[in-house]
Amino acid sequence: MDFATLIGLLGAILLIVTAVVLGAAPGVFLNGASLLIVVGGSLLVVLAKFSIPQFLGAFKAAARAFKFKLPEIQTSIEELVDVANVARKEGVLGLEGRELSSPFLGKGIQMLVDGQPGDTIKQLLDKERLMTLEHNRSGAKVFTAMGDVAPAMGMIGTLIGLVQMLSNMEDPKSIGPAMAVALLTTLYGAMIATMLAGPIADKLTLRMTEEARLQMLYTDALVAIQQGTNPRVIEQMLSSYLPPNKRDKAPEAEAASG
Amino acid sequence: MDFATLIGLLGAILLIVTAVVLGAAPGVFLNGASLLIVVGGSLLVVLAKFSIPQFLGAFKAAARAFKFKLPEIQTSIEELVDVANVARKEGVLGLEGRELSSPFLGKGIQMLVDGQPGDTIKQLLDKERLMTLEHNRSGAKVFTAMGDVAPAMGMIGTLIGLVQMLSNMEDPKSIGPAMAVALLTTLYGAMIATMLAGPIADKLTLRMTEEARLQMLYTDALVAIQQGTNPRVIEQMLSSYLPPNKRDKAPEAEAASG
Amino acid sequence: MDFATLIGLLGAILLIVTAVVLGAAPGVFLNGASLLIVVGGSLLVVLAKFSIPQFLGAFKAAARAFKFKLPEIQTSIEELVDVANVARKEGVLGLEGRELSSPFLGKGIQMLVDGQPGDTIKQLLDKERLMTLEHNRSGAKVFTAMGDVAPAMGMIGTLIGLVQMLSNMEDPKSIGPAMAVALLTTLYGAMIATMLAGPIADKLTLRMTEEARLQMLYTDALVAIQQGTNPRVIEQMLSSYLPPNKRDKAPEAEAASG
Amino acid sequence: MDFATLIGLLGAILLIVTAVVLGAAPGVFLNGASLLIVVGGSLLVVLAKFSIPQFLGAFKAAARAFKFKLPEIQTSIEELVDVANVARKEGVLGLEGRELSSPFLGKGIQMLVDGQPGDTIKQLLDKERLMTLEHNRSGAKVFTAMGDVAPAMGMIGTLIGLVQMLSNMEDPKSIGPAMAVALLTTLYGAMIATMLAGPIADKLTLRMTEEARLQMLYTDALVAIQQGTNPRVIEQMLSSYLPPNKRDKAPEAEAASG
Amino acid sequence: MDFATLIGLLGAILLIVTAVVLGAAPGVFLNGASLLIVVGGSLLVVLAKFSIPQFLGAFKAAARAFKFKLPEIQTSIEELVDVANVARKEGVLGLEGRELSSPFLGKGIQMLVDGQPGDTIKQLLDKERLMTLEHNRSGAKVFTAMGDVAPAMGMIGTLIGLVQMLSNMEDPKSIGPAMAVALLTTLYGAMIATMLAGPIADKLTLRMTEEARLQMLYTDALVAIQQGTNPRVIEQMLSSYLPPNKRDKAPEAEAASG
Repeated sequence: MDFATLIGLLGAILLIVTAVVLGAAPGVFLNGASLLIVVGGSLLVVLAKFSIPQFLGAFKAAARAFKFKLPEIQTSIEELVDVANVARKEGVLGLEGRELSSPFLGKGIQMLVDGQPGDTIKQLLDKERLMTLEHNRSGAKVFTAMGDVAPAMGMIGTLIGLVQMLSNMEDPKSIGPAMAVALLTTLYGAMIATMLAGPIADKLTLRMTEEARLQMLYTDALVAIQQGTNPRVIEQMLSSYLPPNKRDKAPEAEAASG
Repeated sequence: MDFATLIGLLGAILLIVTAVVLGAAPGVFLNGASLLIVVGGSLLVVLAKFSIPQFLGAFKAAARAFKFKLPEIQTSIEELVDVANVARKEGVLGLEGRELSSPFLGKGIQMLVDGQPGDTIKQLLDKERLMTLEHNRSGAKVFTAMGDVAPAMGMIGTLIGLVQMLSNMEDPKSIGPAMAVALLTTLYGAMIATMLAGPIADKLTLRMTEEARLQMLYTDALVAIQQGTNPRVIEQMLSSYLPPNKRDKAPEAEAASG
Repeated sequence: MDFATLIGLLGAILLIVTAVVLGAAPGVFLNGASLLIVVGGSLLVVLAKFSIPQFLGAFKAAARAFKFKLPEIQTSIEELVDVANVARKEGVLGLEGRELSSPFLGKGIQMLVDGQPGDTIKQLLDKERLMTLEHNRSGAKVFTAMGDVAPAMGMIGTLIGLVQMLSNMEDPKSIGPAMAVALLTTLYGAMIATMLAGPIADKLTLRMTEEARLQMLYTDALVAIQQGTNPRVIEQMLSSYLPPNKRDKAPEAEAASG
Repeated sequence: MDFATLIGLLGAILLIVTAVVLGAAPGVFLNGASLLIVVGGSLLVVLAKFSIPQFLGAFKAAARAFKFKLPEIQTSIEELVDVANVARKEGVLGLEGRELSSPFLGKGIQMLVDGQPGDTIKQLLDKERLMTLEHNRSGAKVFTAMGDVAPAMGMIGTLIGLVQMLSNMEDPKSIGPAMAVALLTTLYGAMIATMLAGPIADKLTLRMTEEARLQMLYTDALVAIQQGTNPRVIEQMLSSYLPPNKRDKAPEAEAASG
Repeated sequence: MDFATLIGLLGAILLIVTAVVLGAAPGVFLNGASLLIVVGGSLLVVLAKFSIPQFLGAFKAAARAFKFKLPEIQTSIEELVDVANVARKEGVLGLEGRELSSPFLGKGIQMLVDGQPGDTIKQLLDKERLMTLEHNRSGAKVFTAMGDVAPAMGMIGTLIGLVQMLSNMEDPKSIGPAMAVALLTTLYGAMIATMLAGPIADKLTLRMTEEARLQMLYTDALVAIQQGTNPRVIEQMLSSYLPPNKRDKAPEAEAASG
C-alpha cells in the first residue's frame, strides 16, 4: 500500500471539506449540475483523447500503483548477487527453475540459460524496458490530460453561469447566489486537477521511472553475469543505483576488505 | 470506427448543450456575430500558419483517423511470424505476391525479395518511418494551432464587446446583457479548444505514434527474417511490443515449451 | 505567392474590422496613444533583444517567404533522377555547367565534379544545412518575440490607464469610457500576437523546416550518385520524402515493373 | 553556510512583513484557517506525489545545501594535480590511503589502485554521476511541486471564500472584509511559491548541477592519470572547468613557460 | 557598443514615461514603498536562487555585453585563412608569437604549435566551448529569473494592497486611489520583466550562442589546418558559417575560378 498518496490525498480532501463544512453556507458547495459538467464533461473529453482500453487501463494502473510496491533497490541487489554467486559456482544452468521476484528478471535469466550472447540479452532487455516505459506512460498521460481538461471544463461552466446571470439581472438579490453557483465549476475543476489528477499522474510517472530503473539494474547485472564478472565487483557496480548516503558505505567496506 | 472519440466528443457536447437548454435564457447562447469571429477568425488564422494542402489535409487526416483502425499489435505479430515461417521454409522468394495488411510491410518484403542486405532495408525503412511521422505530425499541428488560436480569438471578441459596452453605458439595464454577449466569444473559444481541437490533436498524435510503433515492429521483424532468425525467437522478440500484462504470458509459455 | 497566409491574415483582419465597424462606437477603437505604446513599444523592446541586422533581416525574410515558393518535392526528385541518369551515362564530369534549381544543389554537384569523397560531401552539406537552419531561425525568433512582447506591452498600457482612471474618479460618467480606452492596449496586443506575429513566426518556421528537408533530400541523392547507385533505386529511396499517399504508388509501380 | 540564500530569503520575507506591518490593518493578514488550507493542503498534496522517504529527504537535502559548501573548482584542480604528480612519481599504488576531499574521488582512486582499465573507470564513474544526479533531482522536484501546488491551493481557498461571500450578501458592510479574507489564501500561495519553494528548488538544482560538474572533472582527471598524462597537461585540460576570466590566465602562463 | 539594445530599451522606457507624464495624475505613478517591494524583493529573491559571485557576475556580464562586440564572422574567416596560409608556407611553427583576435584561438594555435594531434585539439576545444557556454548561461539565467520573479512580486504587492483596501472601506472616495496604488506593483513587475530583464536575458543568450558559434568556427579551422587542408578549401568550408545570402556568392566565385 502506498501510504504517502493515501495520507496526502485523503488528508488534503478532508482539510478542504472541513473548511467548507465549518464555514458559511456549506450546502451551496454541492451542486449536481455543476458536478456533472465538470466531472462528466472532463471524463468524456479525456476518453475522446485515448482509446477505450487505454482509458480504462489508466484507472487499473492507478489502482495497482496504490496496492503493490516495487521491490527495494537494496533487496534487488542482494537477489542479483545471489544469482551471480550461483552462476559462478554452478554455471548459468544452475539458475534454471529459480524463483525470481520479477518476470522481467525471469525473461533475462531464461536468455542466460539459453546461452544467448551478452549483446543480444542487452538489446532485447533494453527494447523490453523502453516498450514497457512507453506503455506505462499512457496511464500517466490519461491523468495528466484530466488535470488539463478539468480546469478548462470548470471555466466553461463558469462562463455559462455568468452569461445566464448577466442576461437575467432583474432581481439584484439573486446576483450574488447565481455568481456563487457559477464559480462552483471553477472550484471543482481546480480541485480535481490539483488534488486528484495531478498527484495520481505524478505518482504513476514516478513509479514507471522507478520500474524502468529497476529493469536497467537487472540488465546491467545480467550482462555482467553473462560475462562472468566477479559477484563482488557486480555488487560494487550496482551500488550506484542506491541513494548516495547508503552507497558511500559500500565502497569503504569494499576498500577495507579489499 | 473510433468509438472513444465519438462517444467522448458527442457526449461532452451533448452534456453542455443540455446544461444550456435546461438553464435560463438558452437563446442568448447562440450569437451569429460571435460565432463568426471565433470560428471564422480561428480558421483563417490557422490557415495562415500552414499551406492550403496541409490545412485541408488535416481535416482529411482527422476523418481517416476516425474511420480506419490500425491493425492490432497481436495480429501483426502473427502475420509476421507467418511470413517468417514461409521465408524459412520456401526462402524469401516464396513471399513474392503475398497479400499483406500494410503497404509499408509490402515495401519491406519487396526489398527482402530483391535480395537487399539487412542494413539497407533497416536504413530505408527507418527513413520512411521518420518521414511518415513528420508528415503525419502536420495534421496534429493544425488542430493544436486551432486549440491555441481559438481562445485568443475568443478573448479578442470579448475585449471588443467590453470596449463597446464601456463606451456606451447610458442605459444601466443594457450593461448585463451586453456583457453576457461579450463573454460568449470567450466561451466559444474555450469550448472549441477544450472539446474539439484539443481531443482531435491528441488523437491524431496518438495514432501517428502507434503507426510509427507498428512500422518499427515491421522493421525489426524484416531485419530478423533477412538474417534467417528462428521464427520462434522472432515471436519472442516482438512480444516486447505487446502491453506488459499480455506479454508476460509469452515467455512463460516459451519457457514451458523450451 | 503564399496564398494561405495572404487569405488567412487579410481575411481574419477584415473579419475583426467589420465586426468593429458594424458594432457600436467604432471610432473608440482607434486611439493613437494606445497604438504607439503597443506597436512602438513592442518594436523597440524586440529590437533590444536582437541586433539591428537581425531585426531588419526578419522583415526581409518574412517578405521573401510570401513571395517565393520552394520547389515541390516531386519536381526536385525528378531533377535529381535526371542528374543521376546523366552521371551514370556521362560520368560526373557531364554535370559541369548544368543549370540547377538551387544554389545548395549547385554547391553539392560542384563537389561531385571536383571528385570529393562521399563522406566529405555529406559532412560539408550537413554543416551547411544546419548553419542555414540556425540562421533562418533568427527570422522566426524575431516574430515569436513580438508575439510574446505585444500582449505584455498591452497589459502595461491597460495598467497605466487603470491607475489613471482609478486615481481620478470624480465624474462617474467618465469611468466607462476611460476603462474602454484602457482596455484598447490589451486588445491591440492580443491582435498583434494572435493575428500577425504568431502566424508569421509559424510560417517562417514551417518554411525553414521544409527548406532543410529539401536540402536533406539533395544530400541523400548526391551521396547516392557519388556511390554510383542505380537511378531507379535512388528514385525509390527519395520517395520517402513524398507524403505517404503519393509515395505508396511508387513501390507498387516498382514492383509491377521489377 | 550559503549566504546568498540566507540573505535573499530572509531579506525578501522581512521586506514584505515590514510593508504589511507598517500598512493598514496588519492584523487581517494573519488567518489560521487560510494558512492551514494553503500550507497544510500543499504539504499533503505534495506528499501524495512522492514517497515518504523522498518527501522527508527533500527537506534534509535543503538543510544540507544550506550548511555545506562544495569545494571550489580551483581547489579541486590543485588536489587532482597533486594526485597526478604522486601517481607519476610513485605509481598509482602511492595513492593508497591518501585522504581525499570527496568519497566519489575516493571510489575512483580505489579503482585506479586496483588497476582497472580507463574505460571501466570512466563507465562506472559516469554511471555513478548520472545516478547521483537523478537521485538529487528528486529533492528539487519536491520543492518545484510545492511551487506549483501552493498557488493552486491558494486559488481553491479564494474560490471557497468567494462562494461563501456571494451566497451570503445581506450585510453590504461585510463584503469588503470577507473578500479580503478570501484573497489571503491567494496571497499565501503566491508568497510560498515565489519566496520559498521556488528559490529552494532552484538552489538545489544549481547545487546538483555543480556537484555533477565536479564529478565530471574528477572523472576526466582520473582517466587522464590512468593513461599517464603529464600533470601539466592535465592542469591545462582541467582549466576548461574554471570560469573564462580565471581560465584565460592559465594558457598564457603556459605559453610563456612552454 | 550594442546600439540595438541601447535604442530599444531607452526608447521603450521613454515612450512609457512620456505616456505617463502627458496623462492624468503622473505623480501617482511614483511610489517608494511599491518600488521597494518589487525591485528590492525581486533582487533579494533572485539572489537567493544563485550564489553571490553568480549574481554579481550577471550584472558584469550584461555590462560587458553592451560594451564589447564579437568579431564579425567574415573577419574571423579572413584571419583564419591568413593563419592557414602561413601554416602552409612556413609550417605551424611560423604561427608562434602571432597576434590573434581571441584567447580561445590563441589556445588552439598554441596546441597546434605544440604538435598535438587533431583529435586532441578538437576534444579540448570542444570541452572548452561547452564549459564556456555553460558558464555564460548563468548570466542569462539571473535575468531570466528576474523576469519570472518581478511579476510575481508585483502580484504579491497588489494582493497586499487589495487586502488592506478591502478591510478598510469606510470612505468610498478612498477606494479608487487605494486600488490605483495597489495596481502599481503589478505595473512595476510587468515593466521590469518585459522591458528590462527579458531583453537583457535574451541579448545575453544571443551573444553566448554567437560566441559559441565563433569558437566552433575556430575549432573547425584549426583541425583543418592541422590536417594540412588547402586554405582555399578551408575558406569554402568555413563559408557555411556566413548568412546564406553572403555565402552563396562564394561557391559561384569558387566555381568560376576552379
